[in-house]
Amino acid sequence: MVKVLAVDTFGTVTDWHTGVSTVLAEQFPTVDASQLANDWRDTYAPALEQIESGARQWTLLDDLHRESLDALLRDSYDITATSTQLDTAVHAWHVIPGWPDAADGIRRLTSKFVVSALSNGNVALLAEMAKHNGFDWDFLGGADLWRHYKPSPEVYLGIARLMQVEPSDVLMVATHAWDLDAARACGLRTAYIERPREWGPVHKDETPNPLDDFRATGFDDLADQLGC
Amino acid sequence: MVKVLAVDTFGTVTDWHTGVSTVLAEQFPTVDASQLANDWRDTYAPALEQIESGARQWTLLDDLHRESLDALLRDSYDITATSTQLDTAVHAWHVIPGWPDAADGIRRLTSKFVVSALSNGNVALLAEMAKHNGFDWDFLGGADLWRHYKPSPEVYLGIARLMQVEPSDVLMVATHAWDLDAARACGLRTAYIERPREWGPVHKDETPNPLDDFRATGFDDLADQLGC
Repeated sequence: MVKVLAVDTFGTVTDWHTGVSTVLAEQFPTVDASQLANDWRDTYAPALEQIESGARQWTLLDDLHRESLDALLRDSYDITATSTQLDTAVHAWHVIPGWPDAADGIRRLTSKFVVSALSNGNVALLAEMAKHNGFDWDFLGGADLWRHYKPSPEVYLGIARLMQVEPSDVLMVATHAWDLDAARACGLRTAYIERPREWGPVHKDETPNPLDDFRATGFDDLADQLGC
Repeated sequence: MVKVLAVDTFGTVTDWHTGVSTVLAEQFPTVDASQLANDWRDTYAPALEQIESGARQWTLLDDLHRESLDALLRDSYDITATSTQLDTAVHAWHVIPGWPDAADGIRRLTSKFVVSALSNGNVALLAEMAKHNGFDWDFLGGADLWRHYKPSPEVYLGIARLMQVEPSDVLMVATHAWDLDAARACGLRTAYIERPREWGPVHKDETPNPLDDFRATGFDDLADQLGC
Protein backbone atom coordinates (compact mmCIF):
# COMPACT_ATOMS: atom_id res chain seq x y z
CA MET A 1 0.00 0.00 0.00
CA VAL A 2 1.40 3.38 -1.03
CA LYS A 3 1.52 5.84 1.88
CA VAL A 4 3.90 8.51 0.67
CA LEU A 5 4.28 10.17 -2.73
CA ALA A 6 7.76 11.51 -3.50
CA VAL A 7 7.45 13.89 -6.41
CA ASP A 8 10.18 15.25 -8.65
CA THR A 9 9.89 18.96 -9.41
CA PHE A 10 11.89 20.22 -12.46
CA GLY A 11 9.94 19.03 -15.48
CA THR A 12 7.49 16.88 -13.53
CA VAL A 13 5.42 19.56 -11.76
CA THR A 14 7.01 22.63 -13.39
CA ASP A 15 7.70 23.68 -16.97
CA TRP A 16 11.35 24.66 -16.64
CA HIS A 17 11.83 25.13 -20.37
CA THR A 18 9.25 27.91 -20.59
CA GLY A 19 10.19 29.52 -17.27
CA VAL A 20 13.92 29.53 -17.82
CA SER A 21 13.93 30.42 -21.52
CA THR A 22 11.62 33.39 -20.84
CA VAL A 23 14.07 34.84 -18.34
CA LEU A 24 17.08 34.03 -20.55
CA ALA A 25 15.43 35.86 -23.47
CA GLU A 26 15.07 38.97 -21.29
CA GLN A 27 18.63 38.81 -19.99
CA PHE A 28 20.39 37.76 -23.20
CA PRO A 29 18.25 39.11 -26.07
CA THR A 30 20.77 38.23 -28.79
CA VAL A 31 20.75 34.46 -28.22
CA ASP A 32 18.31 31.65 -29.04
CA ALA A 33 16.93 31.44 -25.49
CA SER A 34 15.12 28.15 -26.08
CA GLN A 35 18.39 26.56 -27.18
CA LEU A 36 20.34 28.18 -24.34
CA ALA A 37 17.83 26.85 -21.78
CA ASN A 38 18.29 23.32 -23.13
CA ASP A 39 22.07 23.67 -23.32
CA TRP A 40 22.06 24.86 -19.72
CA ARG A 41 19.89 21.94 -18.66
CA ASP A 42 22.34 19.58 -20.38
CA THR A 43 25.06 20.69 -17.95
CA TYR A 44 22.92 19.52 -15.03
CA ALA A 45 23.61 15.78 -14.89
CA PRO A 46 27.42 16.11 -15.31
CA ALA A 47 27.53 18.77 -12.56
CA LEU A 48 25.63 16.55 -10.12
CA GLU A 49 27.76 13.57 -11.08
CA GLN A 50 30.86 15.50 -10.02
CA ILE A 51 29.41 15.75 -6.53
CA GLU A 52 28.19 12.17 -6.28
CA SER A 53 31.46 10.75 -7.63
CA GLY A 54 33.28 12.52 -4.81
CA ALA A 55 35.29 14.64 -7.27
CA ARG A 56 33.77 17.72 -5.68
CA GLN A 57 32.40 18.63 -2.26
CA TRP A 58 28.70 19.15 -1.67
CA THR A 59 27.55 22.30 -3.48
CA LEU A 60 24.03 23.76 -3.72
CA LEU A 61 22.22 23.55 -7.06
CA ASP A 62 22.04 27.36 -7.24
CA ASP A 63 25.83 27.56 -7.23
CA LEU A 64 26.17 24.75 -9.79
CA HIS A 65 23.62 26.49 -12.02
CA ARG A 66 25.47 29.80 -11.78
CA GLU A 67 28.86 28.33 -12.64
CA SER A 68 27.59 26.25 -15.52
CA LEU A 69 25.65 29.12 -17.13
CA ASP A 70 28.65 31.43 -16.80
CA ALA A 71 30.93 28.88 -18.48
CA LEU A 72 28.36 27.95 -21.15
CA LEU A 73 27.80 31.57 -22.17
CA ARG A 74 31.51 32.24 -22.33
CA ASP A 75 32.53 29.03 -24.11
CA SER A 76 29.63 28.48 -26.53
CA TYR A 77 27.96 31.87 -26.93
CA ASP A 78 30.96 34.23 -26.60
CA ILE A 79 29.10 36.22 -23.93
CA THR A 80 30.50 37.41 -20.60
CA ALA A 81 27.50 37.64 -18.32
CA THR A 82 27.26 40.18 -15.51
CA SER A 83 26.75 39.06 -11.95
CA THR A 84 23.19 40.45 -12.01
CA GLN A 85 22.35 38.58 -15.21
CA LEU A 86 23.61 35.33 -13.68
CA ASP A 87 21.72 35.90 -10.43
CA THR A 88 18.51 36.64 -12.32
CA ALA A 89 18.86 33.56 -14.51
CA VAL A 90 19.65 31.29 -11.55
CA HIS A 91 16.63 32.64 -9.70
CA ALA A 92 14.41 31.69 -12.65
CA TRP A 93 14.62 28.06 -11.42
CA HIS A 94 12.97 29.10 -8.13
CA VAL A 95 9.86 30.48 -9.82
CA ILE A 96 9.32 28.15 -12.76
CA PRO A 97 5.62 28.03 -13.67
CA GLY A 98 3.80 24.83 -12.74
CA TRP A 99 2.20 22.67 -15.40
CA PRO A 100 -1.54 23.49 -15.48
CA ASP A 101 -2.57 20.23 -13.76
CA ALA A 102 0.05 20.30 -11.01
CA ALA A 103 -1.24 22.50 -8.18
CA ASP A 104 -4.78 21.06 -8.19
CA GLY A 105 -3.49 17.52 -8.61
CA ILE A 106 -1.07 17.81 -5.70
CA ARG A 107 -3.88 19.16 -3.51
CA ARG A 108 -6.11 16.21 -4.43
CA LEU A 109 -3.33 13.72 -3.71
CA THR A 110 -2.70 15.19 -0.23
CA SER A 111 -6.22 14.09 0.76
CA LYS A 112 -5.06 10.48 0.80
CA PHE A 113 -1.25 10.47 0.92
CA VAL A 114 1.67 12.31 2.45
CA VAL A 115 2.90 14.15 -0.64
CA SER A 116 6.49 15.35 -0.58
CA ALA A 117 8.59 17.10 -3.16
CA LEU A 118 11.75 15.06 -3.80
CA SER A 119 14.03 17.29 -5.77
CA ASN A 120 17.61 18.14 -6.55
CA GLY A 121 16.66 21.69 -5.68
CA ASN A 122 17.33 22.80 -2.13
CA VAL A 123 14.69 23.41 0.52
CA ALA A 124 14.65 27.21 0.18
CA LEU A 125 14.27 26.96 -3.61
CA LEU A 126 11.40 24.49 -3.18
CA ALA A 127 9.70 26.77 -0.64
CA GLU A 128 9.79 29.64 -3.11
CA MET A 129 8.59 27.43 -5.98
CA ALA A 130 5.71 26.17 -3.82
CA LYS A 131 4.59 29.68 -2.81
CA HIS A 132 4.83 30.87 -6.40
CA ASN A 133 2.68 28.03 -7.74
CA GLY A 134 0.40 27.18 -4.83
CA PHE A 135 1.89 23.70 -4.48
CA ASP A 136 0.40 22.34 -1.27
CA TRP A 137 3.23 19.92 -0.41
CA ASP A 138 3.20 18.11 2.90
CA PHE A 139 7.01 18.22 2.94
CA LEU A 140 9.89 19.66 0.96
CA GLY A 141 12.46 16.97 0.30
CA GLY A 142 15.36 19.13 -0.83
CA ALA A 143 18.76 17.71 -1.72
CA ASP A 144 20.41 19.73 1.07
CA LEU A 145 18.64 17.54 3.66
CA TRP A 146 20.85 14.64 2.61
CA ARG A 147 23.67 16.49 0.88
CA HIS A 148 23.19 14.06 -1.97
CA TYR A 149 21.66 14.40 -5.38
CA LYS A 150 19.34 11.99 -7.15
CA PRO A 151 19.90 9.38 -8.46
CA SER A 152 21.91 8.68 -5.29
CA PRO A 153 20.18 6.01 -3.13
CA GLU A 154 20.58 8.21 -0.02
CA VAL A 155 17.81 10.46 -1.33
CA TYR A 156 15.20 7.76 -2.03
CA LEU A 157 15.96 5.83 1.15
CA GLY A 158 16.19 9.12 3.03
CA ILE A 159 12.61 10.17 2.33
CA ALA A 160 11.32 6.72 3.38
CA ARG A 161 13.29 6.92 6.63
CA LEU A 162 12.13 10.47 7.42
CA MET A 163 8.52 9.40 6.84
CA GLN A 164 9.06 6.23 8.91
CA VAL A 165 7.80 3.91 6.19
CA GLU A 166 9.26 1.09 4.12
CA PRO A 167 10.70 2.01 0.71
CA SER A 168 7.89 0.00 -0.91
CA ASP A 169 5.37 2.32 0.78
CA VAL A 170 6.74 5.23 -1.27
CA LEU A 171 5.65 6.02 -4.82
CA MET A 172 8.27 8.02 -6.73
CA VAL A 173 6.58 10.28 -9.29
CA ALA A 174 8.66 11.74 -12.11
CA THR A 175 8.89 12.37 -15.83
CA HIS A 176 12.45 11.02 -16.03
CA ALA A 177 13.25 7.34 -16.50
CA TRP A 178 16.64 7.70 -14.75
CA ASP A 179 14.94 9.00 -11.61
CA LEU A 180 12.35 6.21 -11.58
CA ASP A 181 14.96 3.54 -12.34
CA ALA A 182 17.06 4.64 -9.36
CA ALA A 183 14.01 4.79 -7.09
CA ARG A 184 12.92 1.30 -8.17
CA ALA A 185 16.40 -0.03 -7.43
CA CYS A 186 15.90 1.20 -3.85
CA GLY A 187 12.57 -0.60 -3.54
CA LEU A 188 10.24 2.33 -4.20
CA ARG A 189 7.26 2.09 -6.54
CA THR A 190 7.21 4.34 -9.58
CA ALA A 191 4.81 6.53 -11.54
CA TYR A 192 5.77 8.11 -14.85
CA ILE A 193 4.18 11.44 -15.77
CA GLU A 194 4.12 12.25 -19.48
CA ARG A 195 5.53 15.69 -20.22
CA PRO A 196 6.12 15.71 -23.99
CA ARG A 197 6.87 19.46 -23.98
CA GLU A 198 9.47 19.33 -21.22
CA TRP A 199 12.28 20.38 -23.59
CA GLY A 200 10.13 22.83 -25.54
CA PRO A 201 10.37 22.17 -29.28
CA VAL A 202 12.87 19.32 -28.85
CA HIS A 203 11.55 15.75 -29.06
CA LYS A 204 11.57 13.85 -25.79
CA ASP A 205 11.70 10.06 -25.67
CA GLU A 206 8.82 8.88 -23.51
CA THR A 207 8.85 5.18 -24.32
CA PRO A 208 6.69 3.43 -21.70
CA ASN A 209 8.49 1.22 -19.20
CA PRO A 210 6.43 -1.81 -18.12
CA LEU A 211 8.24 -1.75 -14.76
CA ASP A 212 6.46 1.47 -13.77
CA ASP A 213 3.46 0.91 -11.50
CA PHE A 214 1.59 3.89 -12.95
CA ARG A 215 1.77 6.05 -16.05
CA ALA A 216 -0.24 9.25 -16.20
CA THR A 217 -0.77 12.24 -18.47
CA GLY A 218 -0.64 14.64 -15.51
CA PHE A 219 -1.43 14.99 -11.82
CA ASP A 220 -5.17 15.08 -12.49
CA ASP A 221 -4.87 11.70 -14.21
CA LEU A 222 -2.62 10.35 -11.43
CA ALA A 223 -5.10 11.50 -8.77
CA ASP A 224 -7.89 9.72 -10.69
CA GLN A 225 -5.86 6.50 -10.92
CA LEU A 226 -5.03 6.64 -7.20
CA GLY A 227 -8.67 7.19 -6.25
CA CYS A 228 -8.28 10.72 -4.86
CA MET B 1 12.81 42.04 8.26
CA VAL B 2 11.32 38.71 9.29
CA LYS B 3 11.16 36.27 6.36
CA VAL B 4 10.69 32.90 8.05
CA LEU B 5 8.54 31.87 11.03
CA ALA B 6 9.82 28.87 12.97
CA VAL B 7 6.98 27.59 15.09
CA ASP B 8 7.11 25.22 18.04
CA THR B 9 4.38 22.58 18.06
CA PHE B 10 3.74 20.84 21.42
CA GLY B 11 1.85 23.40 23.51
CA THR B 12 2.25 26.26 21.05
CA VAL B 13 -0.03 25.11 18.21
CA THR B 14 -1.44 22.00 19.88
CA ASP B 15 -3.10 21.28 23.22
CA TRP B 16 -1.03 18.29 24.30
CA HIS B 17 -2.53 18.18 27.78
CA THR B 18 -6.06 17.55 26.49
CA GLY B 19 -4.99 15.23 23.66
CA VAL B 20 -2.66 13.08 25.71
CA SER B 21 -4.72 12.92 28.89
CA THR B 22 -7.79 11.85 26.88
CA VAL B 23 -5.93 8.86 25.45
CA LEU B 24 -4.31 8.04 28.81
CA ALA B 25 -7.75 8.02 30.46
CA GLU B 26 -8.92 5.46 27.91
CA GLN B 27 -5.84 3.26 28.23
CA PHE B 28 -5.36 3.51 32.02
CA PRO B 29 -8.83 4.15 33.49
CA THR B 30 -7.71 3.73 37.10
CA VAL B 31 -5.26 6.63 37.15
CA ASP B 32 -5.60 10.43 37.27
CA ALA B 33 -4.93 10.90 33.55
CA SER B 34 -4.44 14.66 33.81
CA GLN B 35 -1.72 14.12 36.41
CA LEU B 36 -0.17 11.27 34.43
CA ALA B 37 -0.04 13.44 31.29
CA ASN B 38 1.82 16.15 33.20
CA ASP B 39 4.13 13.66 34.90
CA TRP B 40 4.91 12.20 31.49
CA ARG B 41 5.61 15.63 30.07
CA ASP B 42 7.97 16.29 32.98
CA THR B 43 10.20 13.44 31.76
CA TYR B 44 10.64 15.20 28.42
CA ALA B 45 13.40 17.72 29.16
CA PRO B 46 15.64 15.26 31.06
CA ALA B 47 15.28 12.69 28.26
CA LEU B 48 16.32 15.21 25.60
CA GLU B 49 19.16 16.45 27.79
CA GLN B 50 20.57 12.91 27.86
CA ILE B 51 20.89 13.07 24.08
CA GLU B 52 22.29 16.57 23.88
CA SER B 53 24.81 15.95 26.67
CA GLY B 54 26.20 13.06 24.65
CA ALA B 55 25.29 10.54 27.36
CA ARG B 56 23.08 8.79 24.85
CA GLN B 57 23.02 8.39 21.07
CA TRP B 58 20.41 10.09 18.93
CA THR B 59 16.99 8.55 19.60
CA LEU B 60 13.60 9.53 18.13
CA LEU B 61 11.10 11.27 20.40
CA ASP B 62 8.63 8.40 19.92
CA ASP B 63 11.11 5.99 21.47
CA LEU B 64 11.95 8.36 24.32
CA HIS B 65 8.23 8.84 25.00
CA ARG B 66 7.64 5.11 25.05
CA GLU B 67 10.48 4.36 27.47
CA SER B 68 9.63 7.18 29.82
CA LEU B 69 5.93 6.30 30.04
CA ASP B 70 6.75 2.66 30.64
CA ALA B 71 9.13 3.55 33.50
CA LEU B 72 6.81 6.20 34.95
CA LEU B 73 3.83 3.84 35.09
CA ARG B 74 5.91 1.11 36.69
CA ASP B 75 7.78 3.30 39.19
CA SER B 76 5.12 5.81 40.22
CA TYR B 77 1.77 4.19 39.38
CA ASP B 78 2.57 0.51 39.97
CA ILE B 79 1.23 -0.35 36.51
CA THR B 80 2.87 -2.61 33.93
CA ALA B 81 1.63 -1.36 30.60
CA THR B 82 1.12 -3.62 27.60
CA SER B 83 2.91 -2.95 24.35
CA THR B 84 -0.37 -1.91 22.72
CA GLN B 85 -1.16 0.53 25.53
CA LEU B 86 2.27 2.12 25.17
CA ASP B 87 1.98 2.33 21.37
CA THR B 88 -1.43 3.93 21.62
CA ALA B 89 -0.28 6.47 24.19
CA VAL B 90 2.85 7.36 22.20
CA HIS B 91 0.74 7.83 19.10
CA ALA B 92 -1.44 10.33 20.95
CA TRP B 93 1.37 12.88 20.48
CA HIS B 94 0.98 12.57 16.69
CA VAL B 95 -2.67 13.58 16.70
CA ILE B 96 -2.87 16.17 19.47
CA PRO B 97 -5.72 18.60 18.75
CA GLY B 98 -4.69 22.07 17.63
CA TRP B 99 -5.60 25.13 19.67
CA PRO B 100 -8.69 26.70 18.06
CA ASP B 101 -6.75 29.65 16.56
CA ALA B 102 -3.83 27.62 15.17
CA ALA B 103 -4.86 26.25 11.75
CA ASP B 104 -6.42 29.49 10.51
CA GLY B 105 -3.61 31.57 11.96
CA ILE B 106 -0.91 29.46 10.31
CA ARG B 107 -2.71 29.77 6.98
CA ARG B 108 -2.89 33.56 7.30
CA LEU B 109 0.81 33.76 8.20
CA THR B 110 1.82 31.72 5.11
CA SER B 111 0.47 34.53 2.92
CA LYS B 112 3.44 36.68 3.90
CA PHE B 113 6.10 34.41 5.39
CA VAL B 114 7.64 30.99 4.97
CA VAL B 115 6.10 29.25 7.97
CA SER B 116 7.88 26.15 9.24
CA ALA B 117 7.20 23.91 12.19
CA LEU B 118 10.33 23.72 14.36
CA SER B 119 9.73 20.90 16.76
CA ASN B 120 11.36 18.21 18.83
CA GLY B 121 8.96 15.84 17.13
CA ASN B 122 10.25 14.05 14.05
CA VAL B 123 9.17 14.74 10.48
CA ALA B 124 6.73 11.82 10.21
CA LEU B 125 5.05 12.80 13.49
CA LEU B 126 4.73 16.40 12.28
CA ALA B 127 3.28 15.25 8.94
CA GLU B 128 0.59 13.28 10.78
CA MET B 129 -0.12 16.18 13.18
CA ALA B 130 -0.45 18.56 10.23
CA LYS B 131 -2.88 16.31 8.34
CA HIS B 132 -4.93 15.76 11.48
CA ASN B 133 -5.27 19.47 12.20
CA GLY B 134 -5.12 21.09 8.76
CA PHE B 135 -1.87 22.89 9.59
CA ASP B 136 -0.75 24.36 6.29
CA TRP B 137 2.99 24.45 7.05
CA ASP B 138 5.43 25.43 4.34
CA PHE B 139 7.99 23.07 5.88
CA LEU B 140 8.29 20.50 8.64
CA GLY B 141 11.38 21.19 10.71
CA GLY B 142 11.60 17.92 12.62
CA ALA B 143 14.42 17.15 15.03
CA ASP B 144 15.52 14.17 12.92
CA LEU B 145 16.68 16.57 10.20
CA TRP B 146 19.48 17.69 12.48
CA ARG B 147 19.60 14.80 14.94
CA HIS B 148 19.53 17.42 17.65
CA TYR B 149 16.85 18.57 20.03
CA LYS B 150 15.95 22.11 20.99
CA PRO B 151 17.36 24.03 22.80
CA SER B 152 20.47 22.93 20.87
CA PRO B 153 21.78 25.74 18.62
CA GLU B 154 22.04 23.31 15.68
CA VAL B 155 18.25 23.38 15.36
CA TYR B 156 17.78 27.17 15.31
CA LEU B 157 20.77 27.78 13.05
CA GLY B 158 19.76 24.76 10.97
CA ILE B 159 16.39 26.17 9.94
CA ALA B 160 17.99 29.51 8.98
CA ARG B 161 20.57 27.70 6.86
CA LEU B 162 18.00 25.48 5.14
CA MET B 163 15.90 28.55 4.31
CA GLN B 164 19.03 30.42 3.17
CA VAL B 165 18.40 33.41 5.41
CA GLU B 166 20.23 35.07 8.29
CA PRO B 167 19.24 34.00 11.82
CA SER B 168 17.83 37.50 12.39
CA ASP B 169 15.43 36.92 9.48
CA VAL B 170 13.79 34.10 11.46
CA LEU B 171 11.08 34.65 14.08
CA MET B 172 10.89 31.80 16.58
CA VAL B 173 7.33 31.39 17.85
CA ALA B 174 6.72 29.40 21.04
CA THR B 175 4.94 29.33 24.35
CA HIS B 176 8.11 28.30 26.22
CA ALA B 177 10.65 30.79 27.52
CA TRP B 178 13.49 28.24 27.33
CA ASP B 179 12.86 27.77 23.60
CA LEU B 180 12.76 31.50 22.90
CA ASP B 181 15.83 32.18 25.07
CA ALA B 182 17.85 29.62 23.11
CA ALA B 183 16.61 30.98 19.78
CA ARG B 184 17.49 34.54 20.82
CA ALA B 185 20.99 33.42 21.80
CA CYS B 186 21.39 32.20 18.19
CA GLY B 187 20.32 35.57 16.80
CA LEU B 188 16.69 34.74 15.98
CA ARG B 189 13.82 37.05 16.87
CA THR B 190 11.18 35.76 19.24
CA ALA B 191 7.40 35.74 19.68
CA TYR B 192 5.75 34.38 22.81
CA ILE B 193 2.29 32.84 22.49
CA GLU B 194 0.21 32.80 25.67
CA ARG B 195 -1.18 29.35 26.41
CA PRO B 196 -2.36 29.55 30.03
CA ARG B 197 -4.08 26.13 29.79
CA GLU B 198 -1.06 24.29 28.41
CA TRP B 199 -0.75 22.13 31.55
CA GLY B 200 -4.51 21.76 32.04
CA PRO B 201 -5.51 22.68 35.59
CA VAL B 202 -1.92 23.38 36.67
CA HIS B 203 -0.80 27.02 36.84
CA LYS B 204 1.75 28.03 34.19
CA ASP B 205 4.13 30.93 34.70
CA GLU B 206 3.74 33.26 31.73
CA THR B 207 5.64 36.30 33.02
CA PRO B 208 6.28 38.58 30.02
CA ASN B 209 9.89 38.87 28.87
CA PRO B 210 10.73 42.34 27.50
CA LEU B 211 13.34 40.71 25.22
CA ASP B 212 10.62 39.09 23.12
CA ASP B 213 9.83 40.99 19.91
CA PHE B 214 6.19 39.95 19.99
CA ARG B 215 3.73 38.59 22.53
CA ALA B 216 0.37 37.28 21.34
CA THR B 217 -2.71 35.56 22.71
CA GLY B 218 -2.82 33.16 19.76
CA PHE B 219 -2.04 32.81 16.06
CA ASP B 220 -4.94 35.07 15.10
CA ASP B 221 -3.42 37.82 17.26
CA LEU B 222 0.07 37.13 15.91
CA ALA B 223 -1.20 37.31 12.31
CA ASP B 224 -2.86 40.65 13.15
CA GLN B 225 0.34 42.00 14.66
CA LEU B 226 2.39 40.88 11.65
CA GLY B 227 -0.04 42.47 9.20
CA CYS B 228 -1.27 39.24 7.60
